[in-house]
Amino acid sequence: MSLDSLYAKLTIKTGAKMALIVLDGLGDIATMPQGELTPLEAAKTPNLDKLVASGVAQGRMIPVAPGITPGSGPGHLALFGYDPIEFEVGRGVIETLGLGIELKAGDVAARANFCTLDAKGIVTDRRAGRIATEVCERLCKILSSKVKKVGATQVFIYPGKEHRFVVVFRGAGLEGPVTDTDPNREGLPIATAKPVDAKNAKQKKVAKLIADFYKAALPLLAKEKPANGFLMRGAAHQPDIPTFEERYLMKPAAIAVYPMYKGLSQLVGMVKIEGPQTIAEQFERYIAEYDNYDFFFIHYKYTDKAGEDGDFEAKTKAIEDFDAALPILLGKKPDVLAITGDHSTPCAMKGHSWHPQPVLLHSAYSGSDKLERFTETGSNMGSLGVFEAKYLIRLMQANAKMFDKYGA
Amino acid sequence: MSLDSLYAKLTIKTGAKMALIVLDGLGDIATMPQGELTPLEAAKTPNLDKLVASGVAQGRMIPVAPGITPGSGPGHLALFGYDPIEFEVGRGVIETLGLGIELKAGDVAARANFCTLDAKGIVTDRRAGRIATEVCERLCKILSSKVKKVGATQVFIYPGKEHRFVVVFRGAGLEGPVTDTDPNREGLPIATAKPVDAKNAKQKKVAKLIADFYKAALPLLAKEKPANGFLMRGAAHQPDIPTFEERYLMKPAAIAVYPMYKGLSQLVGMVKIEGPQTIAEQFERYIAEYDNYDFFFIHYKYTDKAGEDGDFEAKTKAIEDFDAALPILLGKKPDVLAITGDHSTPCAMKGHSWHPQPVLLHSAYSGSDKLERFTETGSNMGSLGVFEAKYLIRLMQANAKMFDKYGA
Repeated sequence: MSLDSLYAKLTIKTGAKMALIVLDGLGDIATMPQGELTPLEAAKTPNLDKLVASGVAQGRMIPVAPGITPGSGPGHLALFGYDPIEFEVGRGVIETLGLGIELKAGDVAARANFCTLDAKGIVTDRRAGRIATEVCERLCKILSSKVKKVGATQVFIYPGKEHRFVVVFRGAGLEGPVTDTDPNREGLPIATAKPVDAKNAKQKKVAKLIADFYKAALPLLAKEKPANGFLMRGAAHQPDIPTFEERYLMKPAAIAVYPMYKGLSQLVGMVKIEGPQTIAEQFERYIAEYDNYDFFFIHYKYTDKAGEDGDFEAKTKAIEDFDAALPILLGKKPDVLAITGDHSTPCAMKGHSWHPQPVLLHSAYSGSDKLERFTETGSNMGSLGVFEAKYLIRLMQANAKMFDKYGA
Repeated sequence: MSLDSLYAKLTIKTGAKMALIVLDGLGDIATMPQGELTPLEAAKTPNLDKLVASGVAQGRMIPVAPGITPGSGPGHLALFGYDPIEFEVGRGVIETLGLGIELKAGDVAARANFCTLDAKGIVTDRRAGRIATEVCERLCKILSSKVKKVGATQVFIYPGKEHRFVVVFRGAGLEGPVTDTDPNREGLPIATAKPVDAKNAKQKKVAKLIADFYKAALPLLAKEKPANGFLMRGAAHQPDIPTFEERYLMKPAAIAVYPMYKGLSQLVGMVKIEGPQTIAEQFERYIAEYDNYDFFFIHYKYTDKAGEDGDFEAKTKAIEDFDAALPILLGKKPDVLAITGDHSTPCAMKGHSWHPQPVLLHSAYSGSDKLERFTETGSNMGSLGVFEAKYLIRLMQANAKMFDKYGA
């Protein structure tokens, strides 16, 4: 029996309420320039401290595997309990979700860049001099007004930032992945998309669609300067993922502000709750929706943003802002509460990293690790140890007594 | 190569002596009502403290998988180093072992309940009003004196507590599991046992045996009141498990008081040592048998019993009683000593739980984690980390230098 089927077999629907609060990129590392504290250690967090004093279990989570730095996609899939190595989500899909575009089962989505071609069709600038977003929007409008279909397949084109856009194909019998048309360096012509599995008829169809799309779209850009061409990458279909509700017997809602995280939560069938813009508003909405759902995924972006900027003060402030709003959530405490990140974004690295993120678990049965605060250094000494993020929701379920005893 | 075959390939028979002391349900959680201490933390344990001061490694063990609460069966199989998901032991087998009944390879055992049937054969009370154990014994005697065989298959019937008994089928070509005849609620007739795998001829034979057993046995109870029927559950065969001695090249003995743990140790081929009733007597027997075996499994029940009762004082006292007897064992220290539980039984939960149990390892090569005591909070910081219980005996073997170096 697989471990997942064992969990499924033991699961009891209890109606327990749970909240998973994700401070994006929360984890950090202590380095000399910042006085050997992490932002979580430097931040004043009276409300978190009070929660810790009331009894929590702590630990650290490996987002994917030792040493692997995840993007937001795999980071969140793991948090949602789906092994990101087993459930691969193509880049085209992630990029599309990131723009707030809804995908349907069977859609194939690809990232695209406007580029510059010379008279012979050789790529001379893979990003067309990073054209302004407005130019990108105008060009996408031209393409989408003229190319609505390729054969019987619908085509949707959505602009992103600067030279970036996405292309979505919707029709029967499509499947990714296919190879990129991006030659990956200047001085080469646009490559031909090929099925990754030569025997896969659906991939072949997508490769052919891309070729036909080029035939229809390239002439429309011929007179544009510098963006007279485009390159496509990461064409993939929305994967077949068991829904969160099927998997955990809990009705899930996502209270996120940024489109990417709304999209990722939708990928596993969470209900998107729209409206809130600040973490305080998100927590208020959690209170308002408390009776309507069993599981709340609440996403907070600003810790990651500050980490990406290498801004220690801003990351510390983002944590303090979160802490200031926390009492709203605690006003109606869920049966099980987890606070963590989807990965670390150390200020010293100005980007995502592989360092296990700290995690805190609070329930009537979490026990207390007798630590004073929730920090990276403290969580190293917690009872949860270092574990893979994909087990977090299983531990939350255990804390809600959602599992029958295994064996007599 | 599988990890198990690697271990096997590297194993050297050394004649080292080992003792695995299992304080059943040892692990606990610190919760406010108990003043934020666990029983292990609250107990006065001068002898354990001395052992820790002499140098031990500590850690915590996940009994089966994150969040899974094990019964005694899976808990002990894991301790004995057999992955409990790979080596499933059916409920009927566990229940039978729990009554102190020996099973032979190929036996199929089922749990049974006396129940009450109305004139139409509908189950009106699944437990026959929880009849007294003496009544159960009398009814079992009737059944076992009249139904000794079904076809060529031998039938054995053993009474348990109150309405419970077990039925063992012994003969050629039998295999479980088959579905329960217990309809799981009142108002329904007795269900028909069916093979879980419809193509499995041995399971089919067992399902047929159960039907024939009902034909022979039910009429014998027709005039009884209230126990005029019975329901069968968890019919399963003794699984094919490699013996402990084959697996570890150590001759194992079990010094347990309760039948269930004697049974579980027999499942992997340990020699049952009968007689001792107290932990002091168990340790004395260990001393007496020291030269006759390599590996001693010593089981202590009272920590679990107190945990199940939610009795913090009693659990603390049980640990202190164990500690008081410990010097007897240490009078002839094994080369490798492990002290742990088979799972946690937190007083606050009055039952088994998924919380990793603390473990202590002592040998000439265990090193010292420089902790003052053996506790849940301390073991969070130990050098063994949080690991799966199935690796414990491998670590004990390593501490006895029972493994060759792997590779040059």
